[in-house]
Parts: sequence; C-alpha cells; structure tokens
Amino acid sequence: MSVTVPKGFVAAGLHAGIKKSRPDMALLATEDRQPVTCAAVFTQNKFCAPPVSLDRDLLQANGGRAAAVVVNSGNANAGTGAAGLDDARAMGVATARALGIDAAGVLVCSTGIIGTPLPMDVILPAIPKLGAALSVEGGDEAAKGILTTDHVAKEFVVQGDGWTIGGMAKGCGMIAPNMATMLAFLTTDADVPHETLQAMLKTASDATFNTLNVDGATSTNDTAMLFASGRCGAPSDLDGFGRAVEEACRQLTLKMAHDAEGMTRLAHLHVTGAASDAEARTAAKNIAENNLVKCSWYGADPYWGRLLAAAGSAGVALDVDKSFVSYGGIKVAQGGTNCAHDAQALTEHMLGQEFRIEVNLGAGSGQARVIGVDLGPGYIKENSVTS
Amino acid sequence: MSVTVPKGFVAAGLHAGIKKSRPDMALLATEDRQPVTCAAVFTQNKFCAPPVSLDRDLLQANGGRAAAVVVNSGNANAGTGAAGLDDARAMGVATARALGIDAAGVLVCSTGIIGTPLPMDVILPAIPKLGAALSVEGGDEAAKGILTTDHVAKEFVVQGDGWTIGGMAKGCGMIAPNMATMLAFLTTDADVPHETLQAMLKTASDATFNTLNVDGATSTNDTAMLFASGRCGAPSDLDGFGRAVEEACRQLTLKMAHDAEGMTRLAHLHVTGAASDAEARTAAKNIAENNLVKCSWYGADPYWGRLLAAAGSAGVALDVDKSFVSYGGIKVAQGGTNCAHDAQALTEHMLGQEFRIEVNLGAGSGQARVIGVDLGPGYIKENSVTS
Repeated sequence: MSVTVPKGFVAAGLHAGIKKSRPDMALLATEDRQPVTCAAVFTQNKFCAPPVSLDRDLLQANGGRAAAVVVNSGNANAGTGAAGLDDARAMGVATARALGIDAAGVLVCSTGIIGTPLPMDVILPAIPKLGAALSVEGGDEAAKGILTTDHVAKEFVVQGDGWTIGGMAKGCGMIAPNMATMLAFLTTDADVPHETLQAMLKTASDATFNTLNVDGATSTNDTAMLFASGRCGAPSDLDGFGRAVEEACRQLTLKMAHDAEGMTRLAHLHVTGAASDAEARTAAKNIAENNLVKCSWYGADPYWGRLLAAAGSAGVALDVDKSFVSYGGIKVAQGGTNCAHDAQALTEHMLGQEFRIEVNLGAGSGQARVIGVDLGPGYIKENSVTS
Repeated sequence: MSVTVPKGFVAAGLHAGIKKSRPDMALLATEDRQPVTCAAVFTQNKFCAPPVSLDRDLLQANGGRAAAVVVNSGNANAGTGAAGLDDARAMGVATARALGIDAAGVLVCSTGIIGTPLPMDVILPAIPKLGAALSVEGGDEAAKGILTTDHVAKEFVVQGDGWTIGGMAKGCGMIAPNMATMLAFLTTDADVPHETLQAMLKTASDATFNTLNVDGATSTNDTAMLFASGRCGAPSDLDGFGRAVEEACRQLTLKMAHDAEGMTRLAHLHVTGAASDAEARTAAKNIAENNLVKCSWYGADPYWGRLLAAAGSAGVALDVDKSFVSYGGIKVAQGGTNCAHDAQALTEHMLGQEFRIEVNLGAGSGQARVIGVDLGPGYIKENSVTS
C-alpha cells in the first residue's frame, strides 16, 4: 500500500497486453474525481516524450491541479512524433470518459521502449476496466502496473502530524533503456498551496532523484508528481512536511538504485573542497559517470587515482597538493599521492554493497553528493540488445 | 620501422623489469645527440603526471628543442607527488649522462599504473643499456618498449617530396586504465620552424587523436611529440607536409582504436545540423560517451532513440522535427520518429566492425566528427581490477 494510504485517493493496476504477462497499466485518481493540487517535475531532455509535453501543458493551463494520472509501461511513447501526442491525448480522453470527468484533469505517463507507436488497440479497451477497478486498496496493483524491468515494486509511506505521504516509483534513470525512465507518483492528504508544494517537490527531487546517477543518461520521460488532496488540512509544521516529502523521495531513490539493472554496488559520493557547490556537482557528475571509476567500484578496487583523474578532467578548480580521497572515512590519498592507511579496514569497506567516498578538491568549501552505481557485465547484458 | 626511418634519428627498446617480461622502456634520440625542433601536445587533465609537467617546462625553457625522449611503460609516475617529479628528473639526468648531453635536452614520458612510485632500482640501471643500444634499426624495439596492454605495436611511415615522417604510438585514452595513457612519438627529417611544426601537430591532434573517444576519460599522461631533424631541408609543399602529419596521426589513431581493450566495434560518428561546430562537438562527445549508445553499438542495435536522447541531454540546440539519424547512409529516423528504410541493408551495415552514423540536430550547419567504440564485457573485465 502506498499512494492510496493518504486520504482521498484510489488506484488500480492491470495487465492490458502491452507486455507479455506482467501488469502494464496503472491509474491513480482522487476518490471524488475532483481535481486537487498537483506538483510535478519533468525530464530536461529536449527529446522529451509526447506525454511529458501534454502534462506540462495541462498543469500549466489548470494552475497545477489534476484529478488523475493514467500510466502505461512497456512503451515510452517517445520518438513517436505528432501521432504520439495524439495517442497520449487519446489515453487522457478515454480515462476522462471512464471517470466521468473533463480530460483537462487527466495526466498521462508512459515508460518503455523508444520509437515505437503505442499499441492503442490494447490500451484503450483496458482503460474502462482500470476505471472500474479503482479502489483504496488498489495502491499495490498500481505500483506493479508502472514497472518495466524493475525486479520489485517500489513503495513508501511516511506519516506526520495528522497527514500521510505515500509514494510509488519505477525504474532508474536510463539504466534499463529498452524500458527507459524513472517515474514517481506521490500523494498526500495534507492541504498545501500549489506554489509551496511545487517548490517542495523540486527541492526534494534535486536532493534525491537528481543525485542518482546510474549512467548519465537523461530519460525522455522522467516524471515525478505529488498530488495533495487536502483532506487532512494544512500541516501544523510545514517545514516538517517538506522534510517528509524529501524523505519519501529519498527512500524511493534508494529503492530504485538498489534495483538498477546490472548493479552490484552503490557508492555514496561526496565531493568536498570545491570552489563552489556548482563545481562540486560538476566534479561529482564527472566522477560518477566515469566508466573507469564505475568499473573499479564493480571490482571493489579503491583505485583513488581514477577518482582524481576524473575530477581533474571535469574542468573545475582542483588543487592536487591540498586534495585528498577517502573511502569509508579511510584516507587513502593526500596531496595527490598515496598515504598510509588501514588496508584491512579499507578492504572490508570496499566489499560492502554500499560504500562512501569523499573526494576533496582542495580548492574551496563547495560540496555536492551523488549516488553512483558500479558498471558490471549485467548492465551490458541488459542494454546491448533491444528486447 | 617507424621513428628511425626519417634521417637523423636512432632508437632502442628493452625490458628493464618494470613489467614481468614484455619490453618496458624505450629511448628515441637524434643521431648526433644535438637538440632539434620538437613540437608537443599534452593532456589537459589538471591531475597530470610529473613527467608531463617536466616536459612542458623543458620545452618552454628550450624554445621547443630537444635531443631525446626516454620512456617507461608499466608505471605512469602519476599520483606520485614531489617524489614523482624527482624521479622523472632523475630519469632525464641518467639519460643525459648516457648520451653525454645536457639534461635540459632530454624529455621524459611514463605510462602505466597510477599512484605507485617508479621502480627506480630497475629503471636507472637500464638507461645506460638503452643508450648503448641506440641504432637506426631500433625503431621497432622502441615501439614495443612503450606498449602497455596494447596487443600490437603501432607504427606508421609516410613519405613525401624529399622528406619522411615516422610515428609510433601506444594505448588508447584511458581504455586500459591500469596501464593508462596515449603516447605518440613522431619524427621527420623535414626542416620546419617550431611555431609551424607546433601548429601542425596541434591541428593534426585535434583532428585525429582528440576525435577518438573511448570512454571519455582523460589520461593523466597523454602526450604526442613530433621531432624534426631538418636533415632533408624545408618541404617544397608545406601544406602537403602538414596534411601528411595529420595523416600519420590519423593512421596511429585508427591503430589505437582497433586495439582498444574490450572493443568489438568502432563507430565513425558525424554530428551535423548543429547550431555551431562547438555545439556539434558537445553533442558528439555526449553521444560517444553514452553507455546506452555504446552498449547498442556492442549489440549492433540501430537504436536511434538513444542517439537522439543523448543529443537531447547535451545542452545544445536540437530541433527534433527537423532532425534525422542515419546508419551507413541509411536514414532510420526523420523528425524524431521512425522512417521507412532497407532493414536488410541496415542489418548488414551494423554487423560490420566499423560503422558510420550521422545524427543531424536540425538546428543549423555546425558539424563535428568523433570516433567512438562500443562498450562490451571485455572493457569491464579489463578495468574492474587493478592488475
């Protein structure tokens, strides 16, 4: 149970036939079918999918309110041109009809293979069934319906002073490119103004979803939405609510990272000593996307030279003489060269499924955190042929 | 035979003991031990190795002249701090003594593992032997002495109107990170002023070495040098000579690309229709470094959606409606969606070891070319543990 735990939401999921056998459609709606406040963040990719353009326009036109979001997995409806936008609209219209509401209140998300038209012949007939199946117990089914190559459903619920936040997510960046995209849907029964909710979701996304760097590839469909029914009134502690939104996003991010195709190890990379936070983010991104670094993570090899080499080619300030690198708090390099350390403790830390790395650039006080994953054979196996 | 084909050069290579059994040192010098014009380009990595700093300073102080370059493979002398600079200087001094010349005329290059001190106990005793072994037949031995994980020696000779250019190279960017670095040494008996020679080598490097993108990793030691003995006088056709320098660099680049660890396919990527050449280079780099794209190359999968997705996240102008993608001249996508094409011909082209890809961004007339390689299991096998 996740998105239907907060009061005022119903959901459903089912197998329409886009994929062979696993659930491939989901519907999340307000219990009374009335539009509620909805914050959303989307992919920055200029080659974005039609549903992303559609949702941006709808939320813009509605002042950030929506009554439902219909989702299909197995096909991203990306690289489908004008016909793809028509298909996305048709999904919204069919859903609106099934719910007896205006299509302007229905958001649409798709995730899956790029460049292939949506199989509307199986999607449209399934929508009325989704509408009929909506229930407050439908959260789990919906969480399954949005999955692609994910191994497990990703759900999280956090409760605060009178309010509840529920969330479900799928995928992990473009880690499973044939079934691309990260989608996250959150709900709450708290009553929060749209501007505030949007700011909270943006802040939370930057601190969580956007710190996860699986392969540096920006999906064409990435979307995160937060619906607020307002059923339980305004939070007594708005900051506490904002922190809870971030915590929900963080938990979903970790669940996605751990489910990343081919992933065997996860690195919590902390770049410090940068000339600015922006330069720290640039260096962290360069390090987390560096294949040599990622291969060393796969091999549990504390090869600090690759970390500095990646930072040194990031185009940011780096004072090698003042720099240092540590794994799990164990400093292995100081001033750009080896330094004495507890080899036994280092080995033990590196063999864990998660490890912590600090790369200090010795150039200031800027810092940034990124969650990176290793590069192993599983990733190539998953991505070398279109299923 | 390569660097000793042009008149005025001698070389030697041997096994000093840095590596188990393969040759691991090389020496290239002028026949009369006198300094000659020497152009050079180095890595832009801020975490560059001591020998790189030493060579930059020497050439600066000597007005671009040198009499020899001593090279060791198996250890990059990078991430070795002040002691590493002392070791690089000691290599130069020992070589100068062996040649009976001033140490100011001896350049030093190292390639191999990062973060480990040079084994001077085996390097210093080997230098007098290298000096004694210098000969005009020594080019091949020298070409072997600079190799690390390379499978074959890389040599090329081109002759023009009275002059000859010879070159040897090793490695391929950071494709074999435990034995990092690309090193290229070229010689010619043409008489060309330093400024002209430097400009020619820079132009040639940008058009060849710098278009090869194996994994986006910039080595700490990358170096290309061109010595000109002047023995055969000034080229009658200076432009023709410049083109020959570029051709020599191109042939060495292709030899390195084909020898890249784990490489199974090579892609000649041409980004067109960019708002500017600079934006085309940015997009080409983003595409060639994208792991999803590289995995699709490994799988011979003409998955154009990944190419546009990579271009779309490069932060450059992209007009999807006007864009197109073609493999081997076969257009597979137009306006961001599939277009009819000869599937049979496409499959045949993709199964080759080299294929051509054009990605037109539909935003202008800027263009750029990059040579990319696929990402297969061999790369991970090679890079997941420090040998």
